[in-house]
Amino acid sequence: MHSIGVVHPQTRHFAQPLPLRSGAAIADYTLVYETYGTLNADASNAVLVCHALNAGHHVAGEYDNEQRSVGWWDNLVGPRKPLDTDRFFVIGVNNLGSCFGSTGPMHVNPATGRRYGADFPVVTVEDWVDAQARLIQALGIERLAAVIGGSLGGMQALAWTLRHPQRVRHCIAVASAPNLSAQNIAFNEVARRAITTDPDFHGGHFYEHGVVPARGLRVARMIGHITYLSDDSMAAKFGRELRNGGLGYTTQDIEFQIESYLRHQGEKFSEYFDANTYLLITRALDYFDPAAAHGGDLSAAFAPARDNRFLVVSFSTDWRFAPARSREIVKALVDNRIAVSYAEIDAPHGHDAFLLDDPRYHDTLRAYFERVAAESGS
Amino acid sequence: MHSIGVVHPQTRHFAQPLPLRSGAAIADYTLVYETYGTLNADASNAVLVCHALNAGHHVAGEYDNEQRSVGWWDNLVGPRKPLDTDRFFVIGVNNLGSCFGSTGPMHVNPATGRRYGADFPVVTVEDWVDAQARLIQALGIERLAAVIGGSLGGMQALAWTLRHPQRVRHCIAVASAPNLSAQNIAFNEVARRAITTDPDFHGGHFYEHGVVPARGLRVARMIGHITYLSDDSMAAKFGRELRNGGLGYTTQDIEFQIESYLRHQGEKFSEYFDANTYLLITRALDYFDPAAAHGGDLSAAFAPARDNRFLVVSFSTDWRFAPARSREIVKALVDNRIAVSYAEIDAPHGHDAFLLDDPRYHDTLRAYFERVAAESGS
Repeated sequence: MHSIGVVHPQTRHFAQPLPLRSGAAIADYTLVYETYGTLNADASNAVLVCHALNAGHHVAGEYDNEQRSVGWWDNLVGPRKPLDTDRFFVIGVNNLGSCFGSTGPMHVNPATGRRYGADFPVVTVEDWVDAQARLIQALGIERLAAVIGGSLGGMQALAWTLRHPQRVRHCIAVASAPNLSAQNIAFNEVARRAITTDPDFHGGHFYEHGVVPARGLRVARMIGHITYLSDDSMAAKFGRELRNGGLGYTTQDIEFQIESYLRHQGEKFSEYFDANTYLLITRALDYFDPAAAHGGDLSAAFAPARDNRFLVVSFSTDWRFAPARSREIVKALVDNRIAVSYAEIDAPHGHDAFLLDDPRYHDTLRAYFERVAAESGS
Repeated sequence: MHSIGVVHPQTRHFAQPLPLRSGAAIADYTLVYETYGTLNADASNAVLVCHALNAGHHVAGEYDNEQRSVGWWDNLVGPRKPLDTDRFFVIGVNNLGSCFGSTGPMHVNPATGRRYGADFPVVTVEDWVDAQARLIQALGIERLAAVIGGSLGGMQALAWTLRHPQRVRHCIAVASAPNLSAQNIAFNEVARRAITTDPDFHGGHFYEHGVVPARGLRVARMIGHITYLSDDSMAAKFGRELRNGGLGYTTQDIEFQIESYLRHQGEKFSEYFDANTYLLITRALDYFDPAAAHGGDLSAAFAPARDNRFLVVSFSTDWRFAPARSREIVKALVDNRIAVSYAEIDAPHGHDAFLLDDPRYHDTLRAYFERVAAESGS
């Protein structure tokens, strides 16, 4: 397998307002995206990759002269990799509201001349998908061969088949769920409260005060991180290992390696992630619930996707979006007699498994993309 | 069943220093406790109840002229209740470091004339048990008929059989564990970071600043609360129910009932719980690990308890201290040929089930205490 090499982000500006699910609209906006591979003559080999909370358009490859800049799904996307860029034209796009380049809370609101901050409109999975669809059209692609995403990205992949079913053929939803459970929402809410009650949050207008709510972001990330790992993988990786070999009997300093690891994760995150983006993205997760418009009937919700084909993948130790949640999706598809393959991967790494290269998982994706390639003539 | 009626807390001062596991000592201290029922002539019918994080000596009954002051385990302890105060003399004691009356961080350090605050010595489960043993002796009880506790209280019950095996007969450990997993420690650490990074924490000396780190305490409690409930019970109780019937599309205000519930729990907690106590108690949880002194061999750790008898109870949906953790205890006891009964209760309520009155659970305790009564002539 070869690396995709050096890549370059691109931007596209959209002057037409984007109507949002909330009733508001974004007057005009810019999306940042990357592409890998070559679009074929009939534009039939395009695959869109949707990102989750802590990622963006930089899916694969690396940036010129930038250390440790490898894309977040580089193990999946590249020449001869499971999503093979020798065959597919792969697109990564940063979602609206993000802090990685597309129009978001850190940008200036043209209506006020001030940064959006907390005034950035609430965006949903469906809004993101609509914005992505405009980009796909602008790139000259009538129909995607496939859309793929993990976790929140999987929700976007699902939403593509509900909002734009004619504009995509295959949907691959990994480690995803048809909506958040009360427990999922609860974890999001605690993380949000850590951020919004940080005195440096200033109601979401902290940019103007020259500070960031780093304390809140750290705690939010620590909470999130616990839910991404399985109990077993934490036990295997850290167990009760002490940081300094012996106990210090301290309530405020680090005793256990797991504490050191979590603090480090929180620290790193607080240095690059935007607090308003964190709120927006966790809310998009909370709001996603395609069954809601159908009285809770997920099967009814999937009726528009009758001509799509699906691969649904879950991981045995994922307790954030457990296999049972993926099976709800599969059941709804089967109820509609929609073609669906389902793989429940016995993997120890919890929710984060979707980012790792477990051979059974990647073999499953490779086989499925071979089928997509054969169908689309890629 | 009858209520135990009006009860009164008592205090006892201990002038002899208590040596602590950390190597430090508490020079002198006061314990607050309550008793229910009557100690029989040969003092053979005493049962000690150990409390978990958010509780104290007020186990049963209520206070005179005080609304909603019923004890935290009143459904278990009282006349004709499973722990029958017509037969047993039941003792509830508040642990050192607590904020409910026994000597703790809010009290004045006689060595400095200032409140202890963050300087209160780190106390462990073993230290608590040693202090409890002194109280039991002061009450004229040579040997407890039983010690019982849930969660962290269960750890104290276990520690009694390891440190003072001749001074207790039966040990009842409910919803407990032989130590915290990395994930358990991780949740404690996030909660602690929420508290200690609250600007109002002032390194633990906030009393002198006339503030409390309420923001941190709220977040800490919200995190804790999620781990006390099962995913299923949260789904059943709250699901995705909206607070106002429709979506408001807001990142900072409440949308879902679960958010409202958690915020309320956090708010209540921050109004009465002490931040330094929270740190101390979560650390006592982190540190408990009787196998550590035996190279991780829990069976070796339980060798001193060979003359004790045990009831171990777990709950099917408890993911904080899952049944597998209780089975580790049972295995260690069986390895020592120690008498142990084990009940795994199929209950939907998660860790909190130990506080509820599920009939199968309470019937199990009732039957066990009848055996204890028969043995001890209660």
